[in-house]
Amino acid sequence: MKFNCELKRVVDDSYDIEIGRKLQDTLVSDLKGGLVGKIKKFAVVTDSIVVDLYGRDIYERLNAAGLKAELFVIPEGEKSKTRQMKEFVEDSMLEKGFRRDCCVVAVGGGVVTDLAGFVAGTFGRGVPFVNYATTLLAAADASVGGKTAVDTPLATNLIGLFNQPKKVYLDIDTWKTLPEEQLSSGLAETIKHGCLGDKELFEYLEKNVEKVLECDGEACEYIAKKNCEVKYKVVMKDERESGLREVLNLGHTVGRAIETVSDYRLYHGEAVAIGMVAQARLGEKLGFISHENEQRVERLLERAKLPTKIPDYIDRKALVKKLYTDKKVRDGKLRFVFQKEIGEMMCFGENQYGKEISEEQIAEIITEM
Amino acid sequence: MKFNCELKRVVDDSYDIEIGRKLQDTLVSDLKGGLVGKIKKFAVVTDSIVVDLYGRDIYERLNAAGLKAELFVIPEGEKSKTRQMKEFVEDSMLEKGFRRDCCVVAVGGGVVTDLAGFVAGTFGRGVPFVNYATTLLAAADASVGGKTAVDTPLATNLIGLFNQPKKVYLDIDTWKTLPEEQLSSGLAETIKHGCLGDKELFEYLEKNVEKVLECDGEACEYIAKKNCEVKYKVVMKDERESGLREVLNLGHTVGRAIETVSDYRLYHGEAVAIGMVAQARLGEKLGFISHENEQRVERLLERAKLPTKIPDYIDRKALVKKLYTDKKVRDGKLRFVFQKEIGEMMCFGENQYGKEISEEQIAEIITEM
Repeated sequence: MKFNCELKRVVDDSYDIEIGRKLQDTLVSDLKGGLVGKIKKFAVVTDSIVVDLYGRDIYERLNAAGLKAELFVIPEGEKSKTRQMKEFVEDSMLEKGFRRDCCVVAVGGGVVTDLAGFVAGTFGRGVPFVNYATTLLAAADASVGGKTAVDTPLATNLIGLFNQPKKVYLDIDTWKTLPEEQLSSGLAETIKHGCLGDKELFEYLEKNVEKVLECDGEACEYIAKKNCEVKYKVVMKDERESGLREVLNLGHTVGRAIETVSDYRLYHGEAVAIGMVAQARLGEKLGFISHENEQRVERLLERAKLPTKIPDYIDRKALVKKLYTDKKVRDGKLRFVFQKEIGEMMCFGENQYGKEISEEQIAEIITEM
Repeated sequence: MKFNCELKRVVDDSYDIEIGRKLQDTLVSDLKGGLVGKIKKFAVVTDSIVVDLYGRDIYERLNAAGLKAELFVIPEGEKSKTRQMKEFVEDSMLEKGFRRDCCVVAVGGGVVTDLAGFVAGTFGRGVPFVNYATTLLAAADASVGGKTAVDTPLATNLIGLFNQPKKVYLDIDTWKTLPEEQLSSGLAETIKHGCLGDKELFEYLEKNVEKVLECDGEACEYIAKKNCEVKYKVVMKDERESGLREVLNLGHTVGRAIETVSDYRLYHGEAVAIGMVAQARLGEKLGFISHENEQRVERLLERAKLPTKIPDYIDRKALVKKLYTDKKVRDGKLRFVFQKEIGEMMCFGENQYGKEISEEQIAEIITEM
């Protein structure tokens, strides 16, 4: 006997990304104005650095506006992206009386938005959340796509959810308070976006990368918007990363592995920069990109003050081994995505952007670098 | 500057519930036949009791059919519904090389299906899963609705996800291996379904409850199907529990609290039975159900060998305090749902099935019981 559980429905997860300076007032008036319905209880999740810069300020503004907010602070850094930290935030929220009628307000960089978005996705089986991104990396990485996740000792970003925020705020002004390496780290994802889907963005950066490093307003707004556009274009076509979305993994196969093997001594973007060089060099060998364009990628990364070589302290063998924990691995075989010259992706068949690569091929590149 | 992230799409989460005896072969041929696409790697999640009855058998059948399966066993019982156990399953899966191209096969009762469905929902940001339900409770509770969750020290079922399985198997034959208290426990949810939405089911049980306790085939198939129907009717109209779905919480406000305060000495259904009596008695005082019908509810629960009184060892004060962790609590106030006579729910306004109840009102009932 069969019973058919028919569950077809239209889901609308649309949201706005607000790009500008000092968006705190906009955030508060949005939340007071019904962006998340009648909810009046807000969990402001932030990290130990951002709390003094923006987190506590937003928490105080929410309370001053008559909304009930509490502050939840996680230690700064990638090492906070764990299930234990998720549990800590959940338990703290429960202790403070938070139940299902609340909203999570993530204030911080990619670690905070990834973790807080994941917390929101499973708290009370899902409560709304908004992202107030305070880094370029979060602007580039965490504003479009709805990816949230934590790391585990055995794999990065493998436990998580697709969860769309109700709104994202990209406060360009916050970038001024970033250490230079973090701004550079964010630029790595921006350069990646240029490489994989926007030649104009790439060439703009070739002209203006120094302006971004100086936090020039116009340049920053331009790249913030471009980042959203490129990512949106890719994500829209493929929400579940079955095909096209893999292109966003450009440079991330080696990048993620280096990040982990370095035990997070390297920023995410720094590791991605090295990964970008790895895919470009391997791509050159395979005829996907000319030597000249490969060099343009390396030069732009260098001008963005990003590393293009694997640091000496990285154990090469451990690195190669780590590659196998990549999400793109299928049937135990390594798969890479490659840029096609500048501004396009290599495609190896319908919706097939990943290409199987032997351990020898990538080990050779790693040895050279 | 605003960027609109337009994300509107049609989601089809429809699935079949197969009701019958000995469905192991159907399961294997479904999975081999492409129910979950090209996936060939299966994580069979089961508990320490069910593993010897059905779990290992299914795992072996999958491997014999040329699919790659691994077995993951959690300790039996409600205490396994924790974030730590979720982590244990995840880490075991990662250690065995599971990545995103896998499917979770839950074999067991409600604890296993709740936990495994939650694991599947966040593993690799979501992998498919199927439920092979081996208890009446799982058949009644976990087959329709897509609710998955774990408990925390501070709240039951508050951390979790809405996640729909690809298929559910209700193997009536497995009920024969259930301890009697567990069969009764499952009957509590069935009686609840009769009370809230199906007079025919209630009256069928009044005639045949003993047959179900004896695992009579026809009676079991009938109630398995009826359970799906009632739950589907409710869930379909309201996937996010904003209104109508709350009716499924009938008896659960007191039930869940007793379950926790008893430290799980009571089965879920046993606790729900007591909760059903509590709402019926309170409902009688408030004029929602006649004395005669209230008595019918109590008598049916008794015939199903379920408790209708709060055990002596339960600390009444702790119980009342625990009520405030209920999901229906809003602005710190207790809210209950009530049956309207037999087979209907009390409705207190459009999509409003919850009614605010004072601590005194419910404390009085608890004292009486």
